[in-house]
Amino acid sequence: MEFLSKKFLFTPGPVQVAPKVMLSMAGPMTHHRLPEFSQVITEIREGLKYLFQTQEPVYFFASSGTGAMEAAIVNCFSPEDKVIAVVGGKFGKRWYELAETYGLNPIPLEVEWGKAVKVEQVEELLKANPDVKGVLIQACETSTGVKHPVKEIAELLKDKDCILVVDAITALGVYPLPMDDWGLDVVITGSQKALSLPPGLSFIAFSKKAQEFAKKSKLPKYYFSLEKEAKAYKKATTAFTPAVTLLLGLKEMLNRIKNIGLEKLFEHYRLLSEACRSAVSEMGLEIFSEVPSESLTVIKSPEGLDTGKLLNFLKNKLGIIFAGGQEHLKGKIIRITHMGDQTPFELVLAISALEVGLNLFGFSVEFGKGVKVVEKYLYEYSKNLQEEA
Amino acid sequence: MEFLSKKFLFTPGPVQVAPKVMLSMAGPMTHHRLPEFSQVITEIREGLKYLFQTQEPVYFFASSGTGAMEAAIVNCFSPEDKVIAVVGGKFGKRWYELAETYGLNPIPLEVEWGKAVKVEQVEELLKANPDVKGVLIQACETSTGVKHPVKEIAELLKDKDCILVVDAITALGVYPLPMDDWGLDVVITGSQKALSLPPGLSFIAFSKKAQEFAKKSKLPKYYFSLEKEAKAYKKATTAFTPAVTLLLGLKEMLNRIKNIGLEKLFEHYRLLSEACRSAVSEMGLEIFSEVPSESLTVIKSPEGLDTGKLLNFLKNKLGIIFAGGQEHLKGKIIRITHMGDQTPFELVLAISALEVGLNLFGFSVEFGKGVKVVEKYLYEYSKNLQEEA
Repeated sequence: MEFLSKKFLFTPGPVQVAPKVMLSMAGPMTHHRLPEFSQVITEIREGLKYLFQTQEPVYFFASSGTGAMEAAIVNCFSPEDKVIAVVGGKFGKRWYELAETYGLNPIPLEVEWGKAVKVEQVEELLKANPDVKGVLIQACETSTGVKHPVKEIAELLKDKDCILVVDAITALGVYPLPMDDWGLDVVITGSQKALSLPPGLSFIAFSKKAQEFAKKSKLPKYYFSLEKEAKAYKKATTAFTPAVTLLLGLKEMLNRIKNIGLEKLFEHYRLLSEACRSAVSEMGLEIFSEVPSESLTVIKSPEGLDTGKLLNFLKNKLGIIFAGGQEHLKGKIIRITHMGDQTPFELVLAISALEVGLNLFGFSVEFGKGVKVVEKYLYEYSKNLQEEA
Repeated sequence: MEFLSKKFLFTPGPVQVAPKVMLSMAGPMTHHRLPEFSQVITEIREGLKYLFQTQEPVYFFASSGTGAMEAAIVNCFSPEDKVIAVVGGKFGKRWYELAETYGLNPIPLEVEWGKAVKVEQVEELLKANPDVKGVLIQACETSTGVKHPVKEIAELLKDKDCILVVDAITALGVYPLPMDDWGLDVVITGSQKALSLPPGLSFIAFSKKAQEFAKKSKLPKYYFSLEKEAKAYKKATTAFTPAVTLLLGLKEMLNRIKNIGLEKLFEHYRLLSEACRSAVSEMGLEIFSEVPSESLTVIKSPEGLDTGKLLNFLKNKLGIIFAGGQEHLKGKIIRITHMGDQTPFELVLAISALEVGLNLFGFSVEFGKGVKVVEKYLYEYSKNLQEEA
């Protein structure tokens, strides 16, 4: 009812944003060329290096994550360049489309949606195509909740004239992806995922090898030009007008992330995603993702269940918002994120809504069956907090 | 951890406030003597009549609820007036103290904390003291979660030269208390309870009979003067500077309440409080309140449990804030409200936090045992919503 307007957003981006962070973006407007704002930009850049675990500059754009994906393509490649696009979901497809749009020569490496690419598949394709200049991949394919083995693929490319371009939009800040250590050449993320901010910012970093590629790139670029941004970077500013308020929120979130530390954050997501998967299995449901990401849990819809109706009911009547499937997975999966401003007990709320909702739509689950499992995890989680205190 | 700053407030006032309502109070400051603001006041007054279910004017003060309690005393009585104060908790005691402070002649009707007063006890005391001018009572005693039988006591006083003064701070808007129908003479509430606003506003309405009492009152009053407020009321304003932003939030909340309708709201609280009590009983805990209010559930602390430590842990480490007991009930009870901007599934969250917390502090409860009961209620609740759609 209207009195109770609260919503719980469990979609894998946008995610819940902390009210205090919202307020940090709601002050009086400032100007991005003021020296005070350069200070903000400098602070943000330090925070981003920590998040990306890199010594290279991290650039940001006022754009969705797709903007940074486009930036990767137009800055690193040239027409006719052969690239492998790992296509195991909607966002793998986007890599392929971007490469095609800019006149590259993309080879799709089709992977069944829900499965992870095998390192050997990439290896074989590289052997068959020794002139491949880049491998385009998702660290986590948001549409299926699958993690691809980017560390191992980076190993393959180490001594080749070929770079690994990683869309880490639903991955960076959730589980370990140390850019420099693993030799990831391009890493991309967006603001509306683990950074727990509204959408509107994208981020991209280039390894030394990728920076060399960029020098030789012959594709047209203006807004997404690394050269322009690199020049502005040296002057502690941006090439074009940045999304000022979102950057103020970003400063706040990067501070929080640094204060907690990446390791503790990773442990948090590991525990919650494991608790969610265990609960869902206990409820008699199947996990859709072959190699499940810690950022979201993707559940196979039970046979015969009208998932669309279930998700609409939960959203409209109970204020619990999950995501469904995209493209051919529409109606076939339920996606629940662990990212964003969620307290651990919100997972109980999500699982409980699922238990009640499934029963309402004809799939019988014993009440409390999944919640009980989550509580066991939260008990252990709390026990650790208790011992720390 | 700092990243997760969200808190869930289950205290019986202040309660959770909807962010949209918070924002309705965060616009540019306005002046209370402008004609536009008189329009706001007029709209609020209509909404308050609906909430109080009265044809009489409802006044508001910039004060806590205690301010309106004081207003009741100073406007309705005179020195030496004999009044009965029903003392069954911290707020009953407050009635007694207020009466004493102003030189009335209060007779305490002591009731064991946790029990409701019996109508016969009031009847006997009235018989023994036929010159009693007023009965001071709580509709719901917030410190114990008990409902007193105000309807039946109002019946007793109908033809007597004696008024019933009802502190309905934790009751009005939660369960039926129709002022005119039941013949309640003075009804009081505050903003930080069922109105789901921040604290800072109190409300009071006087029956025709109470208004006659007010004409004869000889106690000193200035800020809380009914006469001054009644004069200002006619000019669609207030005697003194009102709490402007809180009134803007109030306008928003009264609109919401009117749109939903009191009946639907009462049904909402009835269901959630019943679900909570059933869950708690299933967990092997006892309900402290003899006649439990729908506004909060009060649980007896299990023998040997350090409730203070438990509540502190839940608050500091897990962001779940319950209230403990006051005065001699400190450490002996746990209070969980159903008021405020809560979605029904937040009750699952509260019960789950209690299940995990109790186990952490040595009281063994099977995980999910209480949650299962809440889910059964939420299933029925959702089933009704499903059939409506």
